[in-house]
Amino acid sequence: MPTNVLITGAAGFLGQRLARALLTGTPLLDAAGAPITLDECRLLDVTAGPDPGDRRARWITGDLADDGVLAGAIDADTRAVFHLAAVVSGGAEADFDLGMRVNLDGTRALLDACRRTGQRPTVVFASSVAVYGGDHLPTIVSDGTRLTPQSSYGTQKAIGELLVADYTRRGFIDGRALRLPTISVRPGRPNLALSSFASGIIREPLNGETAVCPVAPETVLWLLSPATVIDCFLHAHNLPGDRLGTDRSLILPGLAVSVAEMVAALARVAGPDVAARVHWERDPRVERVANTWPGHLDDARARALGFPVDTTFEDVIRQYIEDRG
Amino acid sequence: MPTNVLITGAAGFLGQRLARALLTGTPLLDAAGAPITLDECRLLDVTAGPDPGDRRARWITGDLADDGVLAGAIDADTRAVFHLAAVVSGGAEADFDLGMRVNLDGTRALLDACRRTGQRPTVVFASSVAVYGGDHLPTIVSDGTRLTPQSSYGTQKAIGELLVADYTRRGFIDGRALRLPTISVRPGRPNLALSSFASGIIREPLNGETAVCPVAPETVLWLLSPATVIDCFLHAHNLPGDRLGTDRSLILPGLAVSVAEMVAALARVAGPDVAARVHWERDPRVERVANTWPGHLDDARARALGFPVDTTFEDVIRQYIEDRG
Repeated sequence: MPTNVLITGAAGFLGQRLARALLTGTPLLDAAGAPITLDECRLLDVTAGPDPGDRRARWITGDLADDGVLAGAIDADTRAVFHLAAVVSGGAEADFDLGMRVNLDGTRALLDACRRTGQRPTVVFASSVAVYGGDHLPTIVSDGTRLTPQSSYGTQKAIGELLVADYTRRGFIDGRALRLPTISVRPGRPNLALSSFASGIIREPLNGETAVCPVAPETVLWLLSPATVIDCFLHAHNLPGDRLGTDRSLILPGLAVSVAEMVAALARVAGPDVAARVHWERDPRVERVANTWPGHLDDARARALGFPVDTTFEDVIRQYIEDRG
Repeated sequence: MPTNVLITGAAGFLGQRLARALLTGTPLLDAAGAPITLDECRLLDVTAGPDPGDRRARWITGDLADDGVLAGAIDADTRAVFHLAAVVSGGAEADFDLGMRVNLDGTRALLDACRRTGQRPTVVFASSVAVYGGDHLPTIVSDGTRLTPQSSYGTQKAIGELLVADYTRRGFIDGRALRLPTISVRPGRPNLALSSFASGIIREPLNGETAVCPVAPETVLWLLSPATVIDCFLHAHNLPGDRLGTDRSLILPGLAVSVAEMVAALARVAGPDVAARVHWERDPRVERVANTWPGHLDDARARALGFPVDTTFEDVIRQYIEDRG
C-alpha cells in the first residue's frame, strides 16, 4: 500500500520547509510509534512552488475549496495532512469573502475529504493565537481561555479548531490544532499578514534596508522561529491521540518579546548600526489588530507534551542569519 | 417604508409563541428606543405552521440553506431576524451532514442575506448551553468559559456564535447570541433533542401517561420556561448594542434543578400519583451527552443586562398547566 502525506499551502515558506523535513528528516511515526515509510509527499497550493528535488514529491495545484482538487489530493492511502494553507490576517480582513472561502470552506472541504476516505488520517491544522483578542482577555492567556477573535482571520481559525475537534470526536480524523505564535524571522519579502513587521524589523535591517515598525516599542509579541515550528508540526503528528484527549487545540510554546527587545537583540547580534535601520512609525490599522493579540501566553500544556521550544530571540536571529547563508 | 421582521424555525413551538408575542405584545424598540411599527411578520420554516390569524403574518416555506428562499425573506426593510431554526441535538448527532447544512450553512446563508441588505439588521441567534462540555469544565460555567462542545449540535452553535460576533464586528449585522438553557416545559410530543426528557417527565405524567427519565436522579439541568425565553428574545432585540460591546454571546438566566427535584416539584404541584408516573431507566446514549451539559451556570451578565428570569420550577409547572388550559 503506497503511503502518502499532504501539505496544503505547500508553496509557502513554512510549507516548503515542512516538505524538506518530511522528505529528508526523521520519519513520521504511526499510532503504534513505528516509522512511516513515505511513498509520496503531495504538495498542494494555488500555484506550484520550487521542485524539492525528490522523486516522492508531487505538486498539485488548485483551489482548496474545490472538491475536485481535494479528491485528487486525499485518498485512502493518505496517512497525514498538514493543513497550512490560509488567507493571512490582513488578506482576510481586506477581502471577507475570500477569507471565508479559503479559511472556512477550504478547511471544511479538506476535513470532508479526509472523512470520505474512512481511514481517519491524522490532520495537523495550523491555527493561530489570533483566535484570542478583545477587551476581556486575562493578563496571561492559556489553553483554557475562551476564543474571542477580533479579526475575520482569527474567527475563521477558531471555527477551524471547532471543526477539527468535532471531526475528531466523531472519528472522521485524528486532529491536532496548533495555535501558532507569530513566526519570526521569516525570509523573503513582507506579506499581507498584519504581523509581517515582526520579521521585517529583523530581516530588512540585516539586508541593509530600512524597516518600519508600525507598533509601539513596548508591544509584546509571542514569537516562534521557523525551525522550531516545523519541529512542532512533526511532534504534533507523532503525539499519541490519547495524550491530547478531547481537547485537540493547543498554544505552541513561544517567546514573549517586546519589539524594543527584538531590536535590542538585533543590535547585540548584528551591531547598533543595523538596529538603527528600524524606524518607528505607528500605523493605526496594524496597531488596532496587533494590540488585540495576546503577548503573554501560558504554554504549559504544550511544554508538558514535549513540544520543542526556542531558547532566546538572539539565538533565533543567529539561526536566521545562518539559514540565510 | 414597510417594516418587516423574520422568524426562522417559525413553525416550531418557540417560533409560534414568538410570532404571537411580536404580533400582539409590546412593540419592538429600534436603536433609539422608539417603538417599531411592524408591517409584516415573516414566518420561515420547512413547512408552514398554523395561521397566526393576523394579516401581517406571512408564511415562507423552504430550506434555510437555499439562497433563493432567504432572498425572499430578508430585504432592506427587514429590521430584525430571530434565528431559531435548527436541527436539534439528537438530529445533528444522528445525521452529521444535515446538521452541518442547516445549523452551519443555514446560519451563514442567513447572515449573508442580512449583510447583502446593507441595512445592518438586528439578528437574535438562538444558541445553546450545548456549546459547553467536556472534561475540563469548571464547576460553575460562566460567559468567560471557553466553548468546548461535545456534540455536533453544540459545535455548530459555537460556530454560529463566532460568525454572529464577526459579522457584528464588521458592521454587517447587529447580532446577539443567546445561549438557551433547556426549555421546559415544552408542550406537544417528544422530539429528537436529547434533552426532550426534560419536558417529557413533567408533561407526560400530567397527561396521565408514564414517562421515562433516561438520566440519574441527581443530574442537574439548567432550565428556562417557554414564556420567559420569549421575553428574553424580545429583551435581547431591544438592548442597545453598546451595552453588549464586542461580546455578543451570553448565557440566559436559568434555574439549576436536578431531575429528582423536578419530579419532587411535580409531586407538590400535581400530587404524588402523577409524579409516580416517572420511571427511571438510564439510557447511555442520552446520559453520555447530557452529562457533558453544565448544570450550574453563572448568569450574572444576563441578569445585569435586565434579562427576565423564572422564579421556581414549581411556578414553571403551574404556568405550563395554565397555558395548556
